[in-house]
Amino acid sequence: MPSNRTVDRPIVLGVVGDSAAGKSTLAAGIAAVLGPDRVVQLSTDDYHRLDRLERRAHKISALDPAANHIDILEQHLRLLRDGRPILKPVYDHASGTLGRPVYVEPRDFIIVEGLLGYHTRSLRDAHDVKLYLEPDEALRVKWKLRRDCAERGYTADEVMNSLELRRAARREFLEPQRTFADIVIAFHPPPDRADETGAHLNVRHTLRPTLPHPDLTPVLDAGGKSGFYLTLARDIDGKPVDMLEIAGDIDARRARALEDLLWSLIPEANHLRTDLGQFADDHNRTAVSHPLALSQLLVTYHLVKAALGHYAV
Amino acid sequence: MPSNRTVDRPIVLGVVGDSAAGKSTLAAGIAAVLGPDRVVQLSTDDYHRLDRLERRAHKISALDPAANHIDILEQHLRLLRDGRPILKPVYDHASGTLGRPVYVEPRDFIIVEGLLGYHTRSLRDAHDVKLYLEPDEALRVKWKLRRDCAERGYTADEVMNSLELRRAARREFLEPQRTFADIVIAFHPPPDRADETGAHLNVRHTLRPTLPHPDLTPVLDAGGKSGFYLTLARDIDGKPVDMLEIAGDIDARRARALEDLLWSLIPEANHLRTDLGQFADDHNRTAVSHPLALSQLLVTYHLVKAALGHYAV
Repeated sequence: MPSNRTVDRPIVLGVVGDSAAGKSTLAAGIAAVLGPDRVVQLSTDDYHRLDRLERRAHKISALDPAANHIDILEQHLRLLRDGRPILKPVYDHASGTLGRPVYVEPRDFIIVEGLLGYHTRSLRDAHDVKLYLEPDEALRVKWKLRRDCAERGYTADEVMNSLELRRAARREFLEPQRTFADIVIAFHPPPDRADETGAHLNVRHTLRPTLPHPDLTPVLDAGGKSGFYLTLARDIDGKPVDMLEIAGDIDARRARALEDLLWSLIPEANHLRTDLGQFADDHNRTAVSHPLALSQLLVTYHLVKAALGHYAV
Repeated sequence: MPSNRTVDRPIVLGVVGDSAAGKSTLAAGIAAVLGPDRVVQLSTDDYHRLDRLERRAHKISALDPAANHIDILEQHLRLLRDGRPILKPVYDHASGTLGRPVYVEPRDFIIVEGLLGYHTRSLRDAHDVKLYLEPDEALRVKWKLRRDCAERGYTADEVMNSLELRRAARREFLEPQRTFADIVIAFHPPPDRADETGAHLNVRHTLRPTLPHPDLTPVLDAGGKSGFYLTLARDIDGKPVDMLEIAGDIDARRARALEDLLWSLIPEANHLRTDLGQFADDHNRTAVSHPLALSQLLVTYHLVKAALGHYAV
């Protein structure tokens, strides 16, 4: 990271969202731009207290804090943030079992993905930047079907069943964390493309005043209806927020102008500039999405600012 | 433990010694008297960084600190001592593999057995009472053959081989820890019973002035040649120490007098009084040894005193 880094401890990014909400895809680009050797990625799934068979036997959802070692997750985030190593538990999604732990040393940036990252005050306090992913629900179901059938050996029926079974736990344990996020990121198909699952998805960022968001007016002023909008709105909880909308069909020149603006705001990190927005499409080929790229860059902006000591810590 | 316990954190006992030095047998009696629900027992073997196959591939001994997560062991002892839970790694001696970790909460007493408990300053500082077991080497070989063949599925040849292979690592990593012990405990056969491996073994305690040892003179004064001796001696490092020798053939009355004296010195713990000195003999039957019982009681004395706040902490 920036050689003029001034904060003498790891910067912690949280990525909370339901299963198949796009956490890993978003995080992958952020890790790539910061430099993989400067980033540690954790999943709160590794802190499952019960393996898959035990959760079934106890009829308890992986989303339930009681199925997870929340206190150990708190302890490990605190240790990493203090610059200390941990022996991290490991949950294997393919087999649904808990295995041999791995030794993890802190690095400049720690990305914590998972279901329960903001469940307690101590967990929330361990983060510098908190994201919450809530893609359009029909879209998430498609993403989940594709991944769980291809990579985790489930049938489509099993996936639909598990979505149904999780609904109550999702409402009880996952959704209450939304309110603690600095940025809520929602990918959704444009109205005229209901079946879109990839490069042409729009994204909406709900920007809470808990972080000093970058001033985007220079780009906003440059032209009106070109796939990029910032509006004042009321969040679902009634609070006033900025809503940033980036259209999937934003043209490449316009996306580039926004990228240039964001990079110009963090000149210390300009040597890191690289292509963002990559994801695996329906045929498992690498594709690129401007809304994803810009989302990753906006988050990176905050991490760089935090590392430079521009945010209260 | 004593209801008038005054130290508000766990008391940590270390039991360091080579493989089959009698660590678990000694610790079992101490845990029994303190009350199993008041004691957490850990093995530093759980902190192996490499499993058995990996150690073989790398030609590295389990005794080598590099084969172990020493920093994580330090961290976990510090956490437990501070009253916090840990997710403890697990090494399975039967299979030689590392597996799913277990959640461990601190209790009033923590007994840490293993090979490397005093390897670093931080580890030593985490202990309240430090034991080092160095039984007569021919005796330890017999104990190790019996256990490893019966319980860990090795052949006698494999055991003898491993003893040979460990010799250098033992000298380099295990033995230097002896000097940090408060009490060095050495079981050994009496001169006239070279084959003894059980109830008639003598024990010698080398008592360093790093702990305030109990005043045993009332019992010493009560009679001379009766299986119980305290002498001023030079330790192998030349330093003056008290040597306490308890003979395997000490008569029961005399052993009882010493027990009574020790219990009278810790009246707060008298409700815990129970039979000590049990071990599994060559035929895996439970037998009793007076020297073992008195050794366990002497150690318990120190733990109770430490819990009562009588020792600097």
